[in-house]
Amino acid sequence: MKRNWVWNQFFVLEEYTGTDPLYVGKLHSDVDKADGNVRYVLTGDGASSIFTIDEKTGDIHATKRLDREEQGYYTLRAQAVDRETNAPMEDESEFIVKVQDINDNEPKFLDGPYTAGVPEMSPLGMFI
Amino acid sequence: MKRNWVWNQFFVLEEYTGTDPLYVGKLHSDVDKADGNVRYVLTGDGASSIFTIDEKTGDIHATKRLDREEQGYYTLRAQAVDRETNAPMEDESEFIVKVQDINDNEPKFLDGPYTAGVPEMSPLGMFI
Repeated sequence: MKRNWVWNQFFVLEEYTGTDPLYVGKLHSDVDKADGNVRYVLTGDGASSIFTIDEKTGDIHATKRLDREEQGYYTLRAQAVDRETNAPMEDESEFIVKVQDINDNEPKFLDGPYTAGVPEMSPLGMFI
Repeated sequence: MKRNWVWNQFFVLEEYTGTDPLYVGKLHSDVDKADGNVRYVLTGDGASSIFTIDEKTGDIHATKRLDREEQGYYTLRAQAVDRETNAPMEDESEFIVKVQDINDNEPKFLDGPYTAGVPEMSPLGMFI
């Protein structure tokens, strides 16, 4: 049986109304020794139109307002390449950016019984 | 050489001034078939004092304002146990909640050269 923690997800609140790009999270490979040799590359859903990446720090921002009813999550791919040679320093890895419903943004009761609907699940491999 | 994408991190903005608990992110194991059998348990830094978890959905919230200068990140551990028997359904896994500096919350120039300081690195294994 396949069992794995699903970590490769970022979460952003929908309907963010600020004017600055919204911080999503950070790509990081532990091959990155903070010497500037690693260049992070983002591809996939909205990689050029919505999401930007700081190729040195791996910081990802959303530059547009996200609407969960329009698109609930975005599937992207992370790459880490050698800045000089463009050779891959990591296997490409898939991850998602999940648009969080503002109405879901409340702690639930910590004790059962639970009668609420279950959240949608995304079949998602840990690594490619 | 060890090389791995570091995914087991969540990011929250410091100095959040809202009154509602701040959404941090979601623990999820793909052993969780959304049938309510999995109970998520949080231990570690601030697990009882700052961070709450919805034991069914895995949603994590911060209930206190976080100050990066006071504590830059929190090391926590995720567990997924059988709701009936309390038997582990996953190996315990470590992750961090990283407090994001508001001043860092701006996209950097995407082209080099880079002269800024490098971010602090946290030695962090992918899984325990």
